[in-house]
Amino acid sequence: MTESFGTKPVRTLLFGVGTIGAGIGRLAVERDELDLVAAVDSAPAQAGRPMYEALGLDRAGGPAIEADAEQALATVKPELVLHATGSFLPDVLPQLLACVRAGANVVSTCEELSYPWLRHPELAKQLDAEAKAHGVAVLGTGVNPGFVMDTLVVALSGVCQQIERVKITRVVDVATRREQLQRKVGAGITLEEFRERVQAGRFGHVGLKESCWLIAAGLGWQLDALEETFEPVVASNGSAAGMLQTARGTLAGREVIEGIVQMSIGAERPRDEIEIAGTPPVRLVIEGGVPGEPATAAVIVNAASRVVGHAPGLLTMLDLPLPAGKGVAP
Amino acid sequence: MTESFGTKPVRTLLFGVGTIGAGIGRLAVERDELDLVAAVDSAPAQAGRPMYEALGLDRAGGPAIEADAEQALATVKPELVLHATGSFLPDVLPQLLACVRAGANVVSTCEELSYPWLRHPELAKQLDAEAKAHGVAVLGTGVNPGFVMDTLVVALSGVCQQIERVKITRVVDVATRREQLQRKVGAGITLEEFRERVQAGRFGHVGLKESCWLIAAGLGWQLDALEETFEPVVASNGSAAGMLQTARGTLAGREVIEGIVQMSIGAERPRDEIEIAGTPPVRLVIEGGVPGEPATAAVIVNAASRVVGHAPGLLTMLDLPLPAGKGVAP
Repeated sequence: MTESFGTKPVRTLLFGVGTIGAGIGRLAVERDELDLVAAVDSAPAQAGRPMYEALGLDRAGGPAIEADAEQALATVKPELVLHATGSFLPDVLPQLLACVRAGANVVSTCEELSYPWLRHPELAKQLDAEAKAHGVAVLGTGVNPGFVMDTLVVALSGVCQQIERVKITRVVDVATRREQLQRKVGAGITLEEFRERVQAGRFGHVGLKESCWLIAAGLGWQLDALEETFEPVVASNGSAAGMLQTARGTLAGREVIEGIVQMSIGAERPRDEIEIAGTPPVRLVIEGGVPGEPATAAVIVNAASRVVGHAPGLLTMLDLPLPAGKGVAP
Repeated sequence: MTESFGTKPVRTLLFGVGTIGAGIGRLAVERDELDLVAAVDSAPAQAGRPMYEALGLDRAGGPAIEADAEQALATVKPELVLHATGSFLPDVLPQLLACVRAGANVVSTCEELSYPWLRHPELAKQLDAEAKAHGVAVLGTGVNPGFVMDTLVVALSGVCQQIERVKITRVVDVATRREQLQRKVGAGITLEEFRERVQAGRFGHVGLKESCWLIAAGLGWQLDALEETFEPVVASNGSAAGMLQTARGTLAGREVIEGIVQMSIGAERPRDEIEIAGTPPVRLVIEGGVPGEPATAAVIVNAASRVVGHAPGLLTMLDLPLPAGKGVAP
C-alpha cells in the first residue's frame, strides 16, 4: 500500500517568503501533515514580520520571519525545508547545503535543481554527497520545470512501447500572470533590448533544458546535444510582447526532443500540449494550461510527503511515486 | 538518480498467450532488460507450440509453450512473471499464488488486481502476505484500469492544492477494436439480452470501480459508497451498439468521483478526458484516446522494471515511481 507520513506532522521551515514562497507557506499551513514552525527571508522588508502576516494569511501572529538562515535552522531543527529563493543553483547552493547540514530534507523551487546533473555536475555531486552524509533527501520541482513539461511527459510515456520523438509545448498568456513573469520574458521591451538581454543571459524561462534532460533520463536517451534559442514575439507596436523559447535535443544527429515555451502578452490558445511519436502515438492537451503559481505551491507541498522518509540523496521527480494532490471532504 | 535494472536481463516467464498476452510477449522479446525464457498457456491449441510462433513473431523456434504452470515455474525459476489470463481475481488467484510461491515477481493484466483491497479484501491480504513471505512484489496494471482512468488522474492531481471532485471519461469506438471487446460491451445484441447480461453480471468493462478506488486512495478519500450502472447505447436499428458504464463514488453524501466508460460501435469523439475540480481546476484531454491493446502491453512491460527489486508485497501503481516508456535510438 501507499507510503505516507507518520501520524506526527513534519516540522517544516519555509525558506523564502516571496510571491511563490508565500503561496507555498499558505498551503503548508493548511496541511495537517505539515507543521510550519518557522520562515526565513533575508530581505529587510520581511525579517521580523509575524509569519502569518508575511504569508498573507488573515491570521495574527506566528513566529517572526528570521533573517539568518543558519541560526533559524539550528534553533528550529526542521525535518523539512520548503525552499523558494532562486532559479539558479550556484546562487542557492549555500542555502541548500546549510539546510542539508542541519539535517533537513529539502524540496525546492530552484529550477536548475530539477535536473542539475548536466548543467552543474560538480555542484550536483556535492549536494548529493552531503545529502547522503546527513541522511536527507533533496528535490527540485515545481509546475515547470517539475511537472507539465517533464514529469507528465514521462508519466504519459508509460503507455508507449517505444518512443521516437517527443514535442512539448507550453503557451502562456502572460497578460494574466504576475508582472515579474512579464518582465522575465521581455514583454514591453524593444527588440534591440530583447537581443541584448538574450546576449546577457539569465533571460527567459529557466528550466526548459532541465525539463528536456529529465525527459531524456526518463526515456533512457543520452542526448548528443541540447540547444536553446530565444526569439521575441513581436507586438503590433513593434516591441516585444514576450518570448518564444525553444530547446531541441538530438540523438545520433536526429532531433528527439523539442520543447517550446511561448510566454507573451495575448498569446493565442494558452495550453500545455504533449505529443509523443511512438507506438502507440499519444497527444495530450490541457487547454488553458496549468496555472503556474497555485500549481507550483501544490507540486512542492505534494512532493514533500514523498521526499521525507525517502532514501537519502539528491532526487529527481523520476525517483518518486506520484506526488498526488489532496482530496478534500465536503 | 533513477532506479534501474542491473546489467543482467531479468529471467521472465509469460503466463497467458492470448491476444493481450502475445502482445506483451512480443514487447518483452524486444526489450534488452528482459529475457523471455518461457511461456505458459493451458489452452490445448497453444500448449506445445514454439513460443515465438505463438507470439506471432516472424522468428522460428523458442521453447515450447508449457501447459502446466507449476512445472514450468519450477523448471524455469523466473524472476518475473508477466501474467495475462483473466480479469477476475478469484479466477486467477491460484495462478498468482503459484508464481509467488515459486519466488517470482508478478505484473498482471488482471483488472481486479489493480486495486483489489476493497472488492476482495481477504484475497488481497492473502496475496500480500504470500508475496512478503516469498520476498517478491505483485502488481496489477494495464492501460485501463492501471493508467488512463486512475494513475494519470493521480499524476495530474499533483498540480492541485486541493481536489473537490474528479470526473474521468473514456470513450472508445469499438468498431476499431477487436471483436472480443465488442462482445464484452454488448455490441449487436438486443436490449432485452443486454438487460439479461447486466443482471447476470461479469458484463462490460472490468476495472472501473478499481480505477475509482485507486483514485480515492491516491487522493486520500475514504468513499462511503461506489455505485456502478450499465446502460445500453442504442443503435439506429434498435439493438445495442455498446455500453455506457458509469461509476459514482460518494463521500459524506456528495459525489466526488464520476467515472464514465462509453464503449460502442461508432461512438462519437473517442477520447480520454480527466476533469479535476479543485485549486487550480485542470482538464486534460487525449483526443482519440489511448489505444488499449498496444498500450496495455506497454504499461505491463514498462512497470516490470519498477516491480523487480521493489520492496515485497502486493503493490498498486501508487507505490511506484513512474513506469516510463523506452526511447529508441534513431
